[in-house]
Amino acid sequence: MTDTRTETDSIGTIEVPASAYWGAQTQRSIENFPFGEAERMPIGIVHALAIVKQAAARVNRKHGLPGEIADAIEAAAADVAAGKFDDQFPLVIWQTGSGTQSNMNVNEVIAGIANERLAGTRGGKSPVHPNDHVNMSQSSNDSFPTAMHVAVALATERQLRPALARLLGALLEKEEMWADIVKIGRTHLQDATPLTLGQEFSAYARVISLADVRLTIKLTEVHYLAQGGTAVGTGLNAPVGFDEEFAKEVSEITGLEFETAPNKFEALSTHDALVDFHGSLNTLAVALTKIANDMRLLGSGPRSGLGELELPANEPGSSIMPGKVNPTQAEMLTMVAAQVMGNHTAVTVGGLQGHLELNVFKPLIGAAVLRSIHLLSVGMESFAERMVEGAEPNRARIEELLERSLMLVTALAPEIGYDNAAKIAKHAHANGLTLKEAGLALGLVDAATFDRVVRPETMVGR
Amino acid sequence: MTDTRTETDSIGTIEVPASAYWGAQTQRSIENFPFGEAERMPIGIVHALAIVKQAAARVNRKHGLPGEIADAIEAAAADVAAGKFDDQFPLVIWQTGSGTQSNMNVNEVIAGIANERLAGTRGGKSPVHPNDHVNMSQSSNDSFPTAMHVAVALATERQLRPALARLLGALLEKEEMWADIVKIGRTHLQDATPLTLGQEFSAYARVISLADVRLTIKLTEVHYLAQGGTAVGTGLNAPVGFDEEFAKEVSEITGLEFETAPNKFEALSTHDALVDFHGSLNTLAVALTKIANDMRLLGSGPRSGLGELELPANEPGSSIMPGKVNPTQAEMLTMVAAQVMGNHTAVTVGGLQGHLELNVFKPLIGAAVLRSIHLLSVGMESFAERMVEGAEPNRARIEELLERSLMLVTALAPEIGYDNAAKIAKHAHANGLTLKEAGLALGLVDAATFDRVVRPETMVGR
Amino acid sequence: MTDTRTETDSIGTIEVPASAYWGAQTQRSIENFPFGEAERMPIGIVHALAIVKQAAARVNRKHGLPGEIADAIEAAAADVAAGKFDDQFPLVIWQTGSGTQSNMNVNEVIAGIANERLAGTRGGKSPVHPNDHVNMSQSSNDSFPTAMHVAVALATERQLRPALARLLGALLEKEEMWADIVKIGRTHLQDATPLTLGQEFSAYARVISLADVRLTIKLTEVHYLAQGGTAVGTGLNAPVGFDEEFAKEVSEITGLEFETAPNKFEALSTHDALVDFHGSLNTLAVALTKIANDMRLLGSGPRSGLGELELPANEPGSSIMPGKVNPTQAEMLTMVAAQVMGNHTAVTVGGLQGHLELNVFKPLIGAAVLRSIHLLSVGMESFAERMVEGAEPNRARIEELLERSLMLVTALAPEIGYDNAAKIAKHAHANGLTLKEAGLALGLVDAATFDRVVRPETMVGR
Amino acid sequence: MTDTRTETDSIGTIEVPASAYWGAQTQRSIENFPFGEAERMPIGIVHALAIVKQAAARVNRKHGLPGEIADAIEAAAADVAAGKFDDQFPLVIWQTGSGTQSNMNVNEVIAGIANERLAGTRGGKSPVHPNDHVNMSQSSNDSFPTAMHVAVALATERQLRPALARLLGALLEKEEMWADIVKIGRTHLQDATPLTLGQEFSAYARVISLADVRLTIKLTEVHYLAQGGTAVGTGLNAPVGFDEEFAKEVSEITGLEFETAPNKFEALSTHDALVDFHGSLNTLAVALTKIANDMRLLGSGPRSGLGELELPANEPGSSIMPGKVNPTQAEMLTMVAAQVMGNHTAVTVGGLQGHLELNVFKPLIGAAVLRSIHLLSVGMESFAERMVEGAEPNRARIEELLERSLMLVTALAPEIGYDNAAKIAKHAHANGLTLKEAGLALGLVDAATFDRVVRPETMVGR
Repeated sequence: MTDTRTETDSIGTIEVPASAYWGAQTQRSIENFPFGEAERMPIGIVHALAIVKQAAARVNRKHGLPGEIADAIEAAAADVAAGKFDDQFPLVIWQTGSGTQSNMNVNEVIAGIANERLAGTRGGKSPVHPNDHVNMSQSSNDSFPTAMHVAVALATERQLRPALARLLGALLEKEEMWADIVKIGRTHLQDATPLTLGQEFSAYARVISLADVRLTIKLTEVHYLAQGGTAVGTGLNAPVGFDEEFAKEVSEITGLEFETAPNKFEALSTHDALVDFHGSLNTLAVALTKIANDMRLLGSGPRSGLGELELPANEPGSSIMPGKVNPTQAEMLTMVAAQVMGNHTAVTVGGLQGHLELNVFKPLIGAAVLRSIHLLSVGMESFAERMVEGAEPNRARIEELLERSLMLVTALAPEIGYDNAAKIAKHAHANGLTLKEAGLALGLVDAATFDRVVRPETMVGR
Repeated sequence: MTDTRTETDSIGTIEVPASAYWGAQTQRSIENFPFGEAERMPIGIVHALAIVKQAAARVNRKHGLPGEIADAIEAAAADVAAGKFDDQFPLVIWQTGSGTQSNMNVNEVIAGIANERLAGTRGGKSPVHPNDHVNMSQSSNDSFPTAMHVAVALATERQLRPALARLLGALLEKEEMWADIVKIGRTHLQDATPLTLGQEFSAYARVISLADVRLTIKLTEVHYLAQGGTAVGTGLNAPVGFDEEFAKEVSEITGLEFETAPNKFEALSTHDALVDFHGSLNTLAVALTKIANDMRLLGSGPRSGLGELELPANEPGSSIMPGKVNPTQAEMLTMVAAQVMGNHTAVTVGGLQGHLELNVFKPLIGAAVLRSIHLLSVGMESFAERMVEGAEPNRARIEELLERSLMLVTALAPEIGYDNAAKIAKHAHANGLTLKEAGLALGLVDAATFDRVVRPETMVGR
Repeated sequence: MTDTRTETDSIGTIEVPASAYWGAQTQRSIENFPFGEAERMPIGIVHALAIVKQAAARVNRKHGLPGEIADAIEAAAADVAAGKFDDQFPLVIWQTGSGTQSNMNVNEVIAGIANERLAGTRGGKSPVHPNDHVNMSQSSNDSFPTAMHVAVALATERQLRPALARLLGALLEKEEMWADIVKIGRTHLQDATPLTLGQEFSAYARVISLADVRLTIKLTEVHYLAQGGTAVGTGLNAPVGFDEEFAKEVSEITGLEFETAPNKFEALSTHDALVDFHGSLNTLAVALTKIANDMRLLGSGPRSGLGELELPANEPGSSIMPGKVNPTQAEMLTMVAAQVMGNHTAVTVGGLQGHLELNVFKPLIGAAVLRSIHLLSVGMESFAERMVEGAEPNRARIEELLERSLMLVTALAPEIGYDNAAKIAKHAHANGLTLKEAGLALGLVDAATFDRVVRPETMVGR
Repeated sequence: MTDTRTETDSIGTIEVPASAYWGAQTQRSIENFPFGEAERMPIGIVHALAIVKQAAARVNRKHGLPGEIADAIEAAAADVAAGKFDDQFPLVIWQTGSGTQSNMNVNEVIAGIANERLAGTRGGKSPVHPNDHVNMSQSSNDSFPTAMHVAVALATERQLRPALARLLGALLEKEEMWADIVKIGRTHLQDATPLTLGQEFSAYARVISLADVRLTIKLTEVHYLAQGGTAVGTGLNAPVGFDEEFAKEVSEITGLEFETAPNKFEALSTHDALVDFHGSLNTLAVALTKIANDMRLLGSGPRSGLGELELPANEPGSSIMPGKVNPTQAEMLTMVAAQVMGNHTAVTVGGLQGHLELNVFKPLIGAAVLRSIHLLSVGMESFAERMVEGAEPNRARIEELLERSLMLVTALAPEIGYDNAAKIAKHAHANGLTLKEAGLALGLVDAATFDRVVRPETMVGR
């Protein structure tokens, strides 16, 4: 027999495991939304909700919350935010659309911890009441979106931006190291004029650097907090000034620069800030797909592909083909990117469906944005470490391909005209000749001019 | 000065161009939704609405519509359906979500033509009234979705399936012609065990054949017609049996097998049938992207790519690089596919937002499905004709790549074990040896066994 | 200090926890793809891979696999498939795109169990070798997609279709129970002609019934298995007939009717079957959003909304507004639906990117389809039980709204013409009159006609 | 017989209509991509390409282009940019993925006009050559993406931002006008605490104002021009400094502040800037859906909905229900938004698929972004004019709903505790009482406290 205790809410009484810190509303949610452990609300949101409670207690004590209650809430909240009670948050993403039940889960657990510390009995509503004290001056409708923003900002600063920096560093290193390796360019997957391998990688570095700029700019909106709007945005039951004082406390706790949202009605009823933020995660996913695709294409082979890059062999590649090595980090990264693009559709669909004073797709949106950040962060770190950093150019192959290219003819166009240059390229292609042979055979260029103009190393710009 | 006449509706009077057959409601819509000509309602929907009017008149004459009125409506509707009045349908996709205004446009123009023929004056409501006669026993709420289904079924039969058949034919021809060309396989874009070029194309043929099966199955649902549900699905103001008689008439007019929808409430308030149908257009777009991508990859080069296929040169490829030829049909087809995938999101978002008795994203859904069908149809026809049919294998290149492949080692695994076979492949790769050289050098296989087992032509199955 | 043992693969040696059954390749994957526990490969795919190994062993013993090895593999595989070793599968979704590492994880664990049983030492490659024996006649390239299909088919039969049936049952019950409750219809969210509440729910029942039909039809394609194609589709290293024998064994083990895929090249290199299957999950998500939206709209209030339905109160609705009850099951279901639509984009993006002989987005696609099935299944079950089954009509409110509706005027149109009927409705609206009062005041209808024609109960059809 | 003339390109000769200004490559594209008129390349891109040619001629004259040739090109290009030759651009979106054929169409037409003016014969390559002169120092690979950016920037400044401003103005006016109308709030579509109608609209105004900020910020990236990169980004065949001089000329011609892209390799091979820009169009579409949905919900009725707003009656609403008025502008806007969301998927899919030096989904991306801008611009203008500006509050209805609300009980929670306040609300609901009646009946509050605390007008904040 499991040991339980009885907890109550406005619906009535319910049995809760005796060991649990949570109360009636958490228990009801466990039973009403049986999706299982794999679908749990991201712990980042739980931690952020705890930060919300901690900050709210700091402000509330100035507005009538008794000091010992505030102390107890702050201490318990700080412990929850630090991850000491992660097993007390069994609720799943798929619950009420305002996140009320996760908010209550946090309220109940903090009250439960505080009550145990103050009164010796785990759980319950006395002396610390989950609604009247822990949730004081708050509603789920402002606490939960506040936690979404805090969690996203923290994950961006602590995971995503460092991962972007790592990947950028790896790419910049290649840009520099490979600055002098002249190679054939390809447009439409067809041979084109030359460039350097370093130039090729400079594009990837630029892509990642721009992604970082975009996301950093968008954090501005993520830094706006809904807190203080309470139920519908009017701030009913919160003291005047609560919103600004609260934002200051959260900034102090987290070290980031949060501000109170200028319009609370907007902050409760829409999640455009996160939809737009995820828009730039979507762009990042697009960019990473391009980089990973290019690298696996350049590394295709070893003998029947382009073969310009040698990619690191991190594991055996095939369960049937002995000795095979595959670009698995590229496959991981492009799969991650596809899921992020999918999450963007999910976030978009969630964002568009709000009704009047409240968007009720909050847990979906919060969870999807956080998962996207996690996937991209780990994916980029791993790709940087296990793919980019270890990649090496196959110089012999690169040179071989460069030499036999037909598109070096482009350099002749300003000298002999586009139409004549085209004739040389087509003649060379049809007859298996070099460009020079074809040009001389057709009498369209002399050897001296050819040798002066058609020099790959002078065709790659400054 | 433009010549106008005055038309009226329940809002009041409005000036209409004297030359126009349409009436007040069409005119209001022109003014209220100023998106311009490029955004016109697809003419396929207009023609289908005319078929609806023609069929309704046939049924209505049995239920009280005077014969001469019915005759006039039928004749005018047939002319509209045949495309003789296409310039009389200026309305855009972006109008009322039930398509009421396009329905009224058709009602008004048919009445306008009939009135001119019967009474000598273009337009107006007498003797043929757009609502009371042309729209008799109907609502936009059932006529418009009926027209959506009729238009989609016709476009599928007349454009999409013939295009699928053309592409399938082209691929099957290659499958057969190239059945004996053994080539290197590639998995993860890395060299793998061999197969024939015909086998490679057999996958594409299978893909297209399955796409055709899927779409054909889904036509079953598209053949259900909402007509007879009138305003909310109850059939108010339509005689008993109208729905079934109507479906019979449409079947006779079009030569396709339409049926009345078993549940009219569902047929008005959801478009799941079209969302699901477009789901298979999305799958087709996915499939075409794969085929086009593969072909341009196999055709990459001419000298620095895989170079196994020679693709047709349909036009000069570059405005700056003389003599360049690009896989433009593949580029066209993959762009078309991307737009179809986009349309699928649009149709999904439109499908999910119905309220109660009516989904009001009808014009969006209808227009997107028809555009997708058009793009895919023309795209596949063109790709079959200008890319697949003209592609040729580069046999020398194919053989060269096959011979130097390392993954032929896979055939040795059952003889000497996976681990030993892997050693041979890695040794060959590291030292630039052939497999045989490496195997003998390592003493892991003898020459006779090697020659017996490692024969590409025996590795491609039956 | 953790206790480890040394395992080897073609890359070299690696330390594995002594307690683990897995080997070198699994260990490498843990280290190379550090996404954490929340991103684990769905256990359904692991179980399906074990079924693959079990079936393969049955066939392989007829083709040379020693009996005692086959016995040991079959027994270990059956235990894994039954969930007895779920903690031995730590790998994440985001790995090699062929699922090679999860395939090897299953190969290694089955070998590891078998070796422990046969030789007393956990793990290792003797007497049972993960590649040469457990993976005999197979490649990841055919085993993994086979497992994807098996897992999807099982989840569909065991979770999704029962959930559809449960929801359908609940809706059909309401359709019947509420067949006689006449209520106002609404189109464009505006008052329209009446229907019964049962008719309204008949649309939802029809929607779910069609969804079931669609998914059942699509299982046909999911029942095709790639197994037997091995590395690139040619079946190299698998005995002739392996594919058909294998499909028979899987059918026997699972009780479902699997068949070998007619074209293995297609089965390895595309996932159109699953993309298309997920297309119908997407349609189901669209349908469920509509149903949930309608029910929460009908249940809006209690005093300032439509108020026609009383929805079950499963939990307290608000952390700040006492006594509030919210349609949380509808919110859960519409969030779930949004994620499924997102997964559809992910699956589409993964499906379109295959290269040549292999699509390398397999784990993404498999995981996304299975998650969608899980979310929809639990979501529908819960919604049926906690929302639909407990909903009750508010008859007083329904009657009140019906009586004051203006759109009952539609019944007059066939008697007095559309234009006159419009005048009555507009006059009533402008002056706050009933329709009858307005009709008489305007002299457009007499009382007897009005009373005969305008009777809601006769306006709802048959 | 049609009159034609013969034109040539590197493929050979081809007949062109004698009246046409275009040459061989345009003609080939007409024949190779037969999608029809409805799929034409947006004219905005053609005009922007003409601006590119005009600016290039200005720079090229400093680098060797003869003055009279440059003059002729500039003049012809200015005429094309001004829309004087719009019928000379018959090519469709679905062509080569670099936009080469549209670039050549512009090159050929400008040469054709210039040649007619200089030499009296329309078309041809002398004295002005489409490649050597009009396309001098350029490639399609840099000209086309430059034109995409120029066209998007112009459409944003000239259409989108004015439309945003118009809608914002309309919403701000309502915010102010309705600042004192206290009404019931709704969260989860359930009655909640009160706010003012002005506050409700302040959220919409904020939403639009943020959308404008986001798009304006993103123009920074759109202002970067690829021109000067030529074929692969190295700038081969363009003089040093061409890129910066060119950007200055385009800025002067357009009046916008363009800059040369810092990394040309990135600017040719990715379209992240436009993917990200469209991400904010997607956010705007999400935001507009919310606003339109809210307004039609508030305007639902007239007698069986929420009925708080009276929406303008722009047209008759129903072909069967006389007198019906529907929120058609909301339907138009939400359909437009759905298409924009769809376009976002299309742009994303196009953006992710670039290969190496060139993204070949340029026409798709350019056309989709421009269509989204057009749809949103016209949609917002129309919605502002025909929906927002004419909306009126139904004050009687608003007051009636406010008075009977139960959620005013929230104001009591800080006085008597959350649990007691909940009891009052539930008692009132169950027994059809007012809150005050229920509170007194339960003895949980006295009349004086109730009257002091429960005053809607004090519950709406500052």
